[in-house]
Amino acid sequence: MQVTPVPVLKLIDEFSRLPGIGPKTASRLTFYLLRNPADRAVALADALRELHEKVLFCSQCFNITETDPCPVCSDEHRNQAIICVVEEPLDVLAIERTRDYQGLYHVLHGVIAPVEGIGPEDLKIGELVERVRNKGDEVREIIIATNPNLEGEATAMYIARQFQGGNIKITRLARGLPVGGDLEYADEITLSRALSGRSEM
Amino acid sequence: MQVTPVPVLKLIDEFSRLPGIGPKTASRLTFYLLRNPADRAVALADALRELHEKVLFCSQCFNITETDPCPVCSDEHRNQAIICVVEEPLDVLAIERTRDYQGLYHVLHGVIAPVEGIGPEDLKIGELVERVRNKGDEVREIIIATNPNLEGEATAMYIARQFQGGNIKITRLARGLPVGGDLEYADEITLSRALSGRSEM
Repeated sequence: MQVTPVPVLKLIDEFSRLPGIGPKTASRLTFYLLRNPADRAVALADALRELHEKVLFCSQCFNITETDPCPVCSDEHRNQAIICVVEEPLDVLAIERTRDYQGLYHVLHGVIAPVEGIGPEDLKIGELVERVRNKGDEVREIIIATNPNLEGEATAMYIARQFQGGNIKITRLARGLPVGGDLEYADEITLSRALSGRSEM
Repeated sequence: MQVTPVPVLKLIDEFSRLPGIGPKTASRLTFYLLRNPADRAVALADALRELHEKVLFCSQCFNITETDPCPVCSDEHRNQAIICVVEEPLDVLAIERTRDYQGLYHVLHGVIAPVEGIGPEDLKIGELVERVRNKGDEVREIIIATNPNLEGEATAMYIARQFQGGNIKITRLARGLPVGGDLEYADEITLSRALSGRSEM
């Protein structure tokens, strides 16, 4: 006998479409919201509605923002000569948290992944090339901060090639042992990168 | 610099209020929805809004339902002589899935838990006693299917006492080894229950 109300089944279904949330977790969340006052569920519903209504992409760096251009692109105190290229908006967040970077950003919204059918034309690479060209000689360095994995490296190589022969310095974030990490547990590739990138004390 | 739009922070915050969802998962879910078309987020928002709008509690068994009385209570083919008492609506679902039970239900919406300040008056126990009384001699058996833990047992004892001296058979679900389980890994209490409840082959 079908004893579960349709709206409950519907919410369980919607929750379980989210990544990393299985049917068990989805039904746990649904019954949790059902037990709590309605305003809990409504607050979450409102936040979901506002997400796409109020958030847009900056027309210059393609980071998420409420205003276009975004706060970083419209801040004249940021160093206009450096652009840090990242895969996702979350990466901008991570770099901002260090408080060590004062330049601009450019968000690719992905990496080149032929297996998944994602080519350079699906990313904001053309937009980066044009942005740098429009800025004339202003840009002195492009830091390619894609992830240190196969796709990230391939994407970095591809981007570097677009600026070959120019006067712009193309750099990549240092690879090495993570701070607080243990040499004993480091994988061979990280360790060999840490060796080749060693610095004088 | 605050680079994350407020609506994004708000959704991350709302997600992380849900049980078992930490800040990392919450931001992963938020950025997942941001990357996907708006209708994904809106569908989830709609389902959340409808949850409390369309779901109510059955005035007889207190299970969740879209209609009052619920489909089980209003089905004349169900055995009106047996009431199965459970803690939560999810328990009704679990028992219905067995397809082995044809009686009615009564959902307590919790268990007696003095530590958390939950007494019998916070549960639908009074309503159960009244419901049984109103049905006259119709009810022959009450199966107390609260969970086999400390609170569940205490609640079962309390309910059984309410019907002491009457003609109604009060039963409890069998405790024993779970089917497909391994005797080697069974805890002592389960094993001793399985022993005392052993049946002839």
